[in-house]
Amino acid sequence: MKNHVFALLALLFLPLVHAPLGADEGMWLFNRPPRELLKKKYDFTLTEPWLTNAQKASVRFNNGGSGGFVSADGLVVTNHHIGADSILKLSVKGKDLHRDGFYAANREDELKCPDLELNVLQDLTDVTDKVKAAVKPGLSAAEAAAARRAILAKLSKDAQAESGLRCDVVMLYRGAEYHLYRYKKYTDVRLVFAPEHAVASFGGDVDNFEFPRTDLDVSFFRVYEDGKPASTPHYFKWSTTGPADGDLVFVTGHPGTTNRLETLAHLMHRRDVTLPYMLQMLRQREALLIQYAATGPEQKRAAQNDLARVANARKAFTGQYHGLLNPEILAAKAKLEKELRDPIESNPAKYWKEYGRLWREIEDTLRKEATMDAPPLFGSMGNRGIAAERNYALVERGDAFDSQLFKIARHLVRLAEERDKDDGKRLPEYRSSAMASLQYQLFSPAPISADLERTKLAGSLAFLAENVGGGSYGMSKIMAGKPPADRAAELIAGTKLASVAERKRLFEGGKQAIADSADPLIRLAVFIDPDARKLREQFDLNQEVLQQAYASIAKATFEHYGTAIAPDATFTLRLAFGVVKGYEVNGAQLRPLTTLGDLYARSTAQENEEPFRLPKSWLDAKAKLDLTTPINFVSTADTIGGNSGSPVLNRAGELVGINFDRNRHGLVRNFVYTDVQARHVSVHSRGVLEALRHRYQAEGLLRELVP
Amino acid sequence: MKNHVFALLALLFLPLVHAPLGADEGMWLFNRPPRELLKKKYDFTLTEPWLTNAQKASVRFNNGGSGGFVSADGLVVTNHHIGADSILKLSVKGKDLHRDGFYAANREDELKCPDLELNVLQDLTDVTDKVKAAVKPGLSAAEAAAARRAILAKLSKDAQAESGLRCDVVMLYRGAEYHLYRYKKYTDVRLVFAPEHAVASFGGDVDNFEFPRTDLDVSFFRVYEDGKPASTPHYFKWSTTGPADGDLVFVTGHPGTTNRLETLAHLMHRRDVTLPYMLQMLRQREALLIQYAATGPEQKRAAQNDLARVANARKAFTGQYHGLLNPEILAAKAKLEKELRDPIESNPAKYWKEYGRLWREIEDTLRKEATMDAPPLFGSMGNRGIAAERNYALVERGDAFDSQLFKIARHLVRLAEERDKDDGKRLPEYRSSAMASLQYQLFSPAPISADLERTKLAGSLAFLAENVGGGSYGMSKIMAGKPPADRAAELIAGTKLASVAERKRLFEGGKQAIADSADPLIRLAVFIDPDARKLREQFDLNQEVLQQAYASIAKATFEHYGTAIAPDATFTLRLAFGVVKGYEVNGAQLRPLTTLGDLYARSTAQENEEPFRLPKSWLDAKAKLDLTTPINFVSTADTIGGNSGSPVLNRAGELVGINFDRNRHGLVRNFVYTDVQARHVSVHSRGVLEALRHRYQAEGLLRELVP
Repeated sequence: MKNHVFALLALLFLPLVHAPLGADEGMWLFNRPPRELLKKKYDFTLTEPWLTNAQKASVRFNNGGSGGFVSADGLVVTNHHIGADSILKLSVKGKDLHRDGFYAANREDELKCPDLELNVLQDLTDVTDKVKAAVKPGLSAAEAAAARRAILAKLSKDAQAESGLRCDVVMLYRGAEYHLYRYKKYTDVRLVFAPEHAVASFGGDVDNFEFPRTDLDVSFFRVYEDGKPASTPHYFKWSTTGPADGDLVFVTGHPGTTNRLETLAHLMHRRDVTLPYMLQMLRQREALLIQYAATGPEQKRAAQNDLARVANARKAFTGQYHGLLNPEILAAKAKLEKELRDPIESNPAKYWKEYGRLWREIEDTLRKEATMDAPPLFGSMGNRGIAAERNYALVERGDAFDSQLFKIARHLVRLAEERDKDDGKRLPEYRSSAMASLQYQLFSPAPISADLERTKLAGSLAFLAENVGGGSYGMSKIMAGKPPADRAAELIAGTKLASVAERKRLFEGGKQAIADSADPLIRLAVFIDPDARKLREQFDLNQEVLQQAYASIAKATFEHYGTAIAPDATFTLRLAFGVVKGYEVNGAQLRPLTTLGDLYARSTAQENEEPFRLPKSWLDAKAKLDLTTPINFVSTADTIGGNSGSPVLNRAGELVGINFDRNRHGLVRNFVYTDVQARHVSVHSRGVLEALRHRYQAEGLLRELVP
Repeated sequence: MKNHVFALLALLFLPLVHAPLGADEGMWLFNRPPRELLKKKYDFTLTEPWLTNAQKASVRFNNGGSGGFVSADGLVVTNHHIGADSILKLSVKGKDLHRDGFYAANREDELKCPDLELNVLQDLTDVTDKVKAAVKPGLSAAEAAAARRAILAKLSKDAQAESGLRCDVVMLYRGAEYHLYRYKKYTDVRLVFAPEHAVASFGGDVDNFEFPRTDLDVSFFRVYEDGKPASTPHYFKWSTTGPADGDLVFVTGHPGTTNRLETLAHLMHRRDVTLPYMLQMLRQREALLIQYAATGPEQKRAAQNDLARVANARKAFTGQYHGLLNPEILAAKAKLEKELRDPIESNPAKYWKEYGRLWREIEDTLRKEATMDAPPLFGSMGNRGIAAERNYALVERGDAFDSQLFKIARHLVRLAEERDKDDGKRLPEYRSSAMASLQYQLFSPAPISADLERTKLAGSLAFLAENVGGGSYGMSKIMAGKPPADRAAELIAGTKLASVAERKRLFEGGKQAIADSADPLIRLAVFIDPDARKLREQFDLNQEVLQQAYASIAKATFEHYGTAIAPDATFTLRLAFGVVKGYEVNGAQLRPLTTLGDLYARSTAQENEEPFRLPKSWLDAKAKLDLTTPINFVSTADTIGGNSGSPVLNRAGELVGINFDRNRHGLVRNFVYTDVQARHVSVHSRGVLEALRHRYQAEGLLRELVP
């Protein structure tokens, strides 16, 4: 049994990717952990208690990150950059917790986050058979999509009704399997500790996806139930030693998206259609936000979170794009695909019936996504020759309307319509099982900067014009005869959606309230909705075709290689493992650990200028700190975006680090695992203790972490 | 006689553009100055001596700016941002003249710039008849283009042979007229004084195109002949008082490009084809350069000039784009065009023969530029569905190969071929009349940062892939089987073109040397040349058609409105005039002058953070400076990019300011003049004296300016 298809793939190109037998690849499902692999390679026995504790002590940050319980009293550790959204929302003029940091010495000082939701996975069940039974063979793509939508809604709803838990059905292996995930949900989450942003993100965008690093990218929160700290018997013991060079480590977190099971045609589509657009869009936003942030300290604070996200995405997608421009990567992928595909396609008698059109189906569908024959938009916007996929991104995903208030308007408009439908016929984001979390976000009291909203909306309306042409009928309707800046100003000044009460009024008033509303953002959302829905419908249909083809390919793959392949990442809990290990860059050997001393040295070398400027408090604390203390380290474990804040564990299941980044060599991991130079980067558990003790004097927190 | 077509245009949209009779519009030719207008509106008599002095004291910076003589000993004032290219080239590690400023107290301390060329206009002659005689009616577009190329080369060459001066024939009114410009040329130019960049560009990108401003955006150079300061009897006397609110002022400089005579269809083409591409390209470069500059102090210095240019262009083009998204501007333009066009097109018997297809010809030609049927590139790159114009920009203009060393390679490859041709058949940039200036640039000893070259080239190669697809045959040839970063590293490491001696060897070796060269950049330039030339040929043909149509439209316009219309800007000497005058923004009245006190106040309000951080020397000098001294002012005069560094004069012809910017309301001036809020921004002559006296103690320079 060849148990590791991508280890094979990796073998094809040396020295870029060097993966010996049993490479540390895989973001493994908790219901199919890699026991044999760990036993064989590391002589590690993965016990049931170890696994259960790791699962129930792992936390999903619903805004896109990971974390873990580190005390029995609901204390959660994550990255500073995952907590940043809440930290910024808790900041006000004159009290900038993001810039200056925060520490609640007593529990009554802990600050409730306005809209943070944490999830803890309770159990997961394979429900593939139920989905397959509902989506019968022989249906048209549209019928299959409808049947699938209905069964997924039903499974979530029934599970939720039965358990009272948050229940999601997750598609795995791009459609080959479905598992039901049940989560305990926390919405009373309070901020306990955050360091200064300058230390948490030391090196900023320059050092993002780089190593050596010396970032204290951690923050602490606490979950509450009934107004009291929640009891969390499953938690990670905080290691006072942390890992050393060569140690086996585990990462337990929620990797967001990988594309390793995608066909060659799909990767080429990413290269030639998806990523060029994404990069354009992100650069436009980044340029806008950088300029806005530079206009003053308040603007900097308001734009901080958007800017960090956009810059991070731009850097990650740039890395992916350059990876796909690497002929070696595509050649290796092509070779592997051929190996699987040739015997199937050369024996149509056997395979055609069994698998369908497979790779060709995918290619055809992607061609549709890339086609210039986009449906006319907004009545008669006409065909400006842009890809269907780009139209979808602009209009339905909402890239053309980059405003939080617009997103709220869109939800209210759609909710009014969707809530009247059968649960199984709704757009998935409005299923009854998703409603509680959606409302929690929708009615968040977190302040929204009107000034930033105006700026972002004006920029994205102009970006829409850049894509579809400035003179069309649809544009003139959207712009109402004004240039983008004036139109955005009018929309944001005119809307009342900054008020939570108004949102609730419209939510409760349903269709009639929406029809009666003169709110300009509501009217805009209503105006574009028919076209947006048409794009969504076509997109969903394409997804159905893709997933059927991928399910067949997965079947063929399992038969050919065996089933011990981890599925692509899906922002659900996974277990990865690897070794603390340095690597070589341009002939120089990099050590796998950095120290607090390295932090000060680098700041000095960069003349203490941003993004390497240390706060005065840190300069003052230098003499008190043991500068030999490790602060960051790298390992070969398999991570991706979404793993930010993931607990890193040792053999004993203790927390030895908090993952916060990959290096740039790891950016191609979306498509292929490599461990020659690719590493993930973590904060070292000892570095955190040293900073808490001698820089922050956070005695209470220390007592809780290391009693 | 309606003598001011764009004043009329302006009247169409109030309050955006408010232009009373005799608005201050116009970048006037020195051989057709607006005497009547000035007499009538301002009771100012423009005398011949005034005009001659203004002409011969005005200086063109060949790298894209303006300046003026301010002493009889060749002293030139310009903007700091126009001098920056030379200032950076004169900086070395440990001696950063750009960051820290420079002052040569004695002439022997003045620093020779490696490749700066200054031009001073001696005279200009209308040669339209000669061009018309050579380009006979009835020729095909290709024949006409060839005939035009030949006559322009001949006119320049003959004039140069006769005078020994630099001679350029300039197309005016988009093809209706041709004038011959003869320049005295200076290539021994030395740096005399530069303030710190932080003070020269106080507010940086945030305040670019904004007002109020408080920038000391000046630098001083001196032209030398035969190793001695040149004698420049025509110079501007430095005003010790400067202008006050309400004063009439003149701007004499070299505005680069305006598009006011373009048809509606042409402006829509700019909006929908040209500008979206330009913005994409600039954002890609800016993102790259920002990240590069942030990696360290040396990188910041190396990238500084590119970054400033790209950010400035991005902001200017964004303003233009938003202007073209303003329906009022296009509606006004449409109305005006209709007024001229309707009577012509409704009387085909009279006009068809006389004018040709005019507007329709332009529309058709632009449609060709926007067409997706681009010729296949690089043998079989195939048609990736990008506009011909974009292909041209990437391959022929060289956006895909953003590297100074590549530009050198391209010149060497083309020179080898072009020099064997008749002068009249060469690409215009290789005409004998252009050869001296080209060689001066080509053999510049200015250092080129290999590190920055690598970064820019990798970025632009990836940008090419984003545009044409990553998998084509042509891309794989260009990339040589490597990802962009590796390919760029290989090209820059392998080339010897950093050596001026090697450039000279290849230049002198001609075709054989190029054929024998294994230099990877030379080989790349050779590889793309056939396709690049094909694109150029089509582009030139389109330009010929456009210019014939525009010449006819100009004829019709002159007949309809009379001839007192200034031509679009062409980076040649023009005279503009206006009034020092504040304006209203959101109900608040802005004063037209700012003071040194405002500079300090703004820095304090911005917590002395970049780009508002003042150097310590300036903080220390605060007590010594008279803070009520004016530092910047605005006027209504008509300027555009290229006017940077333009002398601003009073009625007596004295220098009262140095123009350095427009405000954002002035960004639409590419398309239409407006003076409601649009202003150009200048450094005040008194502010310069105050800074030289009390911050810089530049006694020698002061004695020369105000003896």
